[in-house]
Amino acid sequence: MPAIDGRGPDDVVVLGIDPGTAATGYGVVVRSGPRRVRLVECGVIRTSAGESMATRIREIHDEVVALLERHAPDVMSVEDVFQGKNAQSALKLGHARGAIILAATLRDLPVAEYAPRQIKKAVVGNGNASKNQVGFMVQSQLRLKAPPTPADAADGVAAALCHCLMGTFPVRSRT
Amino acid sequence: MPAIDGRGPDDVVVLGIDPGTAATGYGVVVRSGPRRVRLVECGVIRTSAGESMATRIREIHDEVVALLERHAPDVMSVEDVFQGKNAQSALKLGHARGAIILAATLRDLPVAEYAPRQIKKAVVGNGNASKNQVGFMVQSQLRLKAPPTPADAADGVAAALCHCLMGTFPVRSRT
Repeated sequence: MPAIDGRGPDDVVVLGIDPGTAATGYGVVVRSGPRRVRLVECGVIRTSAGESMATRIREIHDEVVALLERHAPDVMSVEDVFQGKNAQSALKLGHARGAIILAATLRDLPVAEYAPRQIKKAVVGNGNASKNQVGFMVQSQLRLKAPPTPADAADGVAAALCHCLMGTFPVRSRT
Repeated sequence: MPAIDGRGPDDVVVLGIDPGTAATGYGVVVRSGPRRVRLVECGVIRTSAGESMATRIREIHDEVVALLERHAPDVMSVEDVFQGKNAQSALKLGHARGAIILAATLRDLPVAEYAPRQIKKAVVGNGNASKNQVGFMVQSQLRLKAPPTPADAADGVAAALCHCLMGTFPVRSRT
């Protein structure tokens, strides 16, 4: 049974994620065909800096599992490379990203990874696009009344949209 | 039912882990009281650099889950801080560490974290000890015929031993 109302037999549901230890943005979209994509849900998973890393990654993992159960996506699209130069920040981000990707792979869900530049290039047409430009193009392409807020949520939606524009379909055949 | 033969009611089983994307060392020890610690199992979980990160962290996670099921430890003791300065290496290590810690927290197993210096200080008495010194002291304290090999396995055992020497006991009361 499709988890999303009105889901057609050829629809592909993509869960896009922009990982972070403090704030992980996500967006769920349905692709019915080339240029036919609609937004189902987006938001941000937040954890408190006062909690241990063990608690924070469990919270992130549990929220992602809840998204997987709620929407039964066909693929997870995750923002890829850390661009900063601080090893401690990268180590923390790696923990969050590992917990997110594991939620998918433990359920045999394919994971697509895109660099931030690829996502901006696919969604905006410019690999150096600003946060505002990403939000505006996400709004435009999904025919929303306003850009998703906060920016982390828009980045999660952009990751999903990037896979709709660049990924290979169908991801999985349904019977 | 205790998963380890001859496990006494006050015994505490500690799973020590030295995380790495390519090689994760582990050691399972039983602490029957102060200075009464014995080795149950140690080894290394290896993944191939040719596999995707998603596959590698699932392999690491699955092997850790198998250890948890086989030995039913009371606590996981994980080597903590990344000391290198390369953000890409730290990001990869973070993925592995996240997958390992998540295996514990998803089962409500407490996780203790120790910096490499703390582990060396506790086991060898010197925070700058060499790999050989760690191996020798692990051998000596656990009355083994030789140091655990490879060095990654010895580091996993050292993480477990560090918790036996520095942790608070009992970790959990059994009924």
